[in-house]
This record gives sequence, structure tokens and C-alpha cells, in this order.
Amino acid sequence: MKELPTYQALVDSFAKLPGIGVKSAERMAYAVLEMDENDAQEFAEAIKNAKEKVHRCPRCGIYTENELCEICSDPERDHKTCIVVSYNKDALAFERLGSYHGVYHVLGGVLAPSKGVGADDLTFDALLKRIPAEGIQEIIVATSPTIEGETTSLFLSKLLEGSNVNVTRLAYGLPMGASLDFADSLTLTKALEGRKKI
Amino acid sequence: MKELPTYQALVDSFAKLPGIGVKSAERMAYAVLEMDENDAQEFAEAIKNAKEKVHRCPRCGIYTENELCEICSDPERDHKTCIVVSYNKDALAFERLGSYHGVYHVLGGVLAPSKGVGADDLTFDALLKRIPAEGIQEIIVATSPTIEGETTSLFLSKLLEGSNVNVTRLAYGLPMGASLDFADSLTLTKALEGRKKI
Repeated sequence: MKELPTYQALVDSFAKLPGIGVKSAERMAYAVLEMDENDAQEFAEAIKNAKEKVHRCPRCGIYTENELCEICSDPERDHKTCIVVSYNKDALAFERLGSYHGVYHVLGGVLAPSKGVGADDLTFDALLKRIPAEGIQEIIVATSPTIEGETTSLFLSKLLEGSNVNVTRLAYGLPMGASLDFADSLTLTKALEGRKKI
Repeated sequence: MKELPTYQALVDSFAKLPGIGVKSAERMAYAVLEMDENDAQEFAEAIKNAKEKVHRCPRCGIYTENELCEICSDPERDHKTCIVVSYNKDALAFERLGSYHGVYHVLGGVLAPSKGVGADDLTFDALLKRIPAEGIQEIIVATSPTIEGETTSLFLSKLLEGSNVNVTRLAYGLPMGASLDFADSLTLTKALEGRKKI
């Protein structure tokens, strides 16, 4: 089997997926060989179709098959409030809540100079143009609470300084249902700083 | 994202792979969207190519891209000794040892009347024809040490009763109930050395 180049090519492709090691990739490639003809054909077509038809919404950056994504093209939504996220999947996390009715802006990553990701690689410019064009009044920055996410958040808040838009950040604190003695000290400090009157 | 049919089709295809749930399938489909154009193209081609070019060796049943598999067509190997396995991957486990130089016969499964798998669904007939045709002198039965594997092994030994061929079974160095392709090579070597006449 090691000598079968087509099998090996398939293993290599599977191994490019996140969290898939060589052993898992081999098991998957093997499963494809065992699949019936139709399923394998559909699988290959599904990859091609998804790549061809799905693209980023030119306005907010969320994946869509239409010209604008379902959120940007929905007149029922509040287009004055915009959550700024790093990745498409982060927007989906908010969509799952079902309680947020504003729009999104996907930056496409976080600022990471050490990895060569600068401001030009993210969609800050597009966001700045959206604010007057769509009359956005509140920007909720929702990058991950990591060093790079924080840097990105800080950069964005500086960028919007002096504009009329209201910039907010997700609250830091203890995750619901967590045990207090397992919280790390940074989270605990943030939770203490952000305490609210009850 | 839930409303993108091409994305959903891709998730469905990934979810057909063994051990892949909906959540993992979504992550993989998402990774395909993020992949560069070339990698995705290669991935789709790899599936098609593997399915088109890889077939079972008409003699022993091992996957190959050639007319006969590399093992059957190798004159250096001992064609008088044959390990009988249930699945292709089990033969690969022996190949990885590097110490076995005989040939293989892939049954294509185990006898499982409850799942409708009878003797006609496995390649017993082909094996019986190979014995005189190739002058096989020893058959090492290496079905997994499960109830169904044992049944298959017993059935095969009955089938070969009265023939001149020497039928042996892997020693019980293997833990009962385990899956053969996950056995470590030492256990597998011990099991090979300690094989007993049945």
C-alpha cells in the first residue's frame, strides 16, 4: 500500500485537514477505497462544488453562495450594530445564540507581526468604509482574548478613535458554570476589575 | 452557513468517514473552504484517482494499481506460505513487521450470519483454488481474535480438513476482543512465532 501513489496522494490530502495525523488520514483514505462508487464520486464533487460556489460576502466576509450573505441581505436585521470577529466561525458562534440581530464583519485573522500578518492582510479598510456607507453606530469587538486578539482589538479601537462610532468589547470574566478555584489568575483579575452592582 | 447547500453536501460526505461525527465533519468542510484552490483541486482529484486506479489483486485481494499486487508478483517471496486475513489492512500490519516473506489471502470480511455475511460472500473458493495452483503448503489463519473471527477460522480449518495443507492459527499473544490492525508489532511478532496447528 505504501507503494500505491494514488492512495498515498489521498492520504496526503486528508493529512492537510486540521487535527488529522497520518494514521487517521490513512484510515480515511482506506475508507474511501471501501466506499461505493457513488459516494466517492459525490465526495469529490462536493469538494469541487463547495470550493467553486462558496465565496466570502463582499461586504462582511461571511461565507455565502449568493451575491451578498444572508445576514447582509436581510432587511430585518439591525445594520447599525456590527460585531467584528477574526474568523467566519466566530460569527457562527454568535448566530447560534439566536439573540443577536445585528450584522458582522470578518477581519480574516488577527494581527501577528511574528507570522507576517499585518494590518493590510486584514479587512480593516473595508470596515472603515462600511461605517459611513451603512451608518454603523456601534462596533462590538469580539476577537479572542489572546495576546494577538487583544492587539488586534487595541489596533481597531485606535483606528476608530475620533469617529462617532461607539466601540465596545466583549466582557471578560468567569465563564458560566465554571468552578472558581479552577479559574486562572488573569481571568480572576479581569472578573474582579469588571465587577458590577447587583 | 447552515443554508449553504454545497457546504452541507461536503459536511455530509466527510461524516460518512469512519469515526467522524457531524462536528468534526463541519470542521473539515470548513478547512476545505479555507484551503487554497490548488490543494482543494488536488484533494478532489486524489479521491477520484484512488477510486479509479486502485483495485483488488485478482489473486489475493490486496489493493493494487497493477494487474497483480506487488506481493503476488514478487518471485522472491515464499509462495508456499499464505497468511489468510479478513481485511486488506490486516495484511499491511504483517507487512510492516518486515519479517514475513510469504503471501496473503484477503477473505474480505468475517463470517457473520447475523449480518447476512455467509461463506459465499468471502473468498474461500478462490483460496481453495490457489492451494493446488500455487502449491501452497502452509496456511496461517490470521482472523481477528473475536467471536466472528474465530468462527471464520474454524470454518476454514474444517474446509481444509483432509487436504495436504498445513493449517495453523496465530498464537494467543493477541488480547481477545482487540482489533488486529491496532496490535503493536511485538505482539504481532509473538503471535506469528507461536502459531499452532489447528
